[in-house]
Amino acid sequence: MTQDKVLKIEACFSPALYPTYEDKESIVVIIDVLRATSAICVAFHNGAERMIPVATVDEALSYKQQGFLAGAERDAIKIEGFDFGNSPYDYMGEHVNGQTIALTTTNGTQAIEAARNAYKVVIGSFLNIDVLCDWLVKQDRNILLLCSGWKNRFNLEDSLYAGAVTHEIIKRTQEVKLGDGCLALQYLYEMAKDDPMKFLSHASHKERMVKLNLKKDIRYCLVPNTAPVIPILEGKYLVKLAI
Amino acid sequence: MTQDKVLKIEACFSPALYPTYEDKESIVVIIDVLRATSAICVAFHNGAERMIPVATVDEALSYKQQGFLAGAERDAIKIEGFDFGNSPYDYMGEHVNGQTIALTTTNGTQAIEAARNAYKVVIGSFLNIDVLCDWLVKQDRNILLLCSGWKNRFNLEDSLYAGAVTHEIIKRTQEVKLGDGCLALQYLYEMAKDDPMKFLSHASHKERMVKLNLKKDIRYCLVPNTAPVIPILEGKYLVKLAI
Repeated sequence: MTQDKVLKIEACFSPALYPTYEDKESIVVIIDVLRATSAICVAFHNGAERMIPVATVDEALSYKQQGFLAGAERDAIKIEGFDFGNSPYDYMGEHVNGQTIALTTTNGTQAIEAARNAYKVVIGSFLNIDVLCDWLVKQDRNILLLCSGWKNRFNLEDSLYAGAVTHEIIKRTQEVKLGDGCLALQYLYEMAKDDPMKFLSHASHKERMVKLNLKKDIRYCLVPNTAPVIPILEGKYLVKLAI
Repeated sequence: MTQDKVLKIEACFSPALYPTYEDKESIVVIIDVLRATSAICVAFHNGAERMIPVATVDEALSYKQQGFLAGAERDAIKIEGFDFGNSPYDYMGEHVNGQTIALTTTNGTQAIEAARNAYKVVIGSFLNIDVLCDWLVKQDRNILLLCSGWKNRFNLEDSLYAGAVTHEIIKRTQEVKLGDGCLALQYLYEMAKDDPMKFLSHASHKERMVKLNLKKDIRYCLVPNTAPVIPILEGKYLVKLAI
């Protein structure tokens, strides 16, 4: 980016709207905090070598049949026959160390698929927020925060996180111009930051997860900086960025 | 709606996402406060008999050639050769009384087009917010607040208004369940309500309009209840609902 330009940050609330926001020069941050992008950060923090995000269960199955580890989730439930779902707890421990893991999820991997041809695609969650924001401001590039949402609908938890990233970037540099989405999210984050768990108490996906007894997962996914890695897309693989 | 069901309110931030939120049983409120839906309310308040919202300039032109009055706006500017743009001031006075007016705008009429087959489609703006919310709660139907946005992107002013409607409906009935979009907008409206003009000061479309010397329009479109009518879609026509 040339020096006379101000850094722009925009938020997109649905993978279906990505073409409307697409800009081949921007860095895209993929956001699916409950739980895909949190799980991805955990996997790399636990030594995973590569991940292969795929859109369909069939593709994930094909990788599994080739001998890879594979995770698959739909509607918040792990699909039978796969090694993992999308709980961050599935990706903790020695069993992921050095492995290549295929992954398909209801929302997060769909967002990655949508943004595949962007300048750079990185993975964001509360678990890596500080290292990610430190890195983002150093790149001097426009930023698009791509919320995975729920089946292409706006969701509260991804928006909350996009608001948190906006807040953190403004803390690190004043030289930013916020798009309308980020302007709104700033306020949202301001209201929520002292008690995000309470803020999310009426969120539709949280209700869904609580019914499935996944409250422990939600709590884990809201704790900042427990997996300080930046997964980045290189071709068809997510790898850990050297920082 | 059966009596054991709770009224649901959801917000959709882009006409492009309407198919994701579509529900043939809901009442859809079309929102383009700067300025199409404000102008439509003003036209009916000034005695317009019918309006014909159309997606393209060609369609509007065709109505004009048939002898109808016709408004056309693109990128906040009135298209040459038409009777009106989308400024509410264009639709004030005796010249609209009893008339049928075709209208095409950058965003608002596109949202109407998207939702054309919904159970009921009504027009919302600050100018008719109280009569609209009074009517909405009486219908005992789910409500979808369809923000026109800006060329399918999220915008701040339509979201602010959707937040205001959410707030007003909750004031009128406790028996509501908010979707994630409305949950977020509640907070947004809470932050903005004391000084919406200031709240919108960084909004992209406001900047665009200020450049075009349209600050007077913005101010007008934010004043509640100056055009207490409910335009409703009947076939291809918008008409004034008898209330």
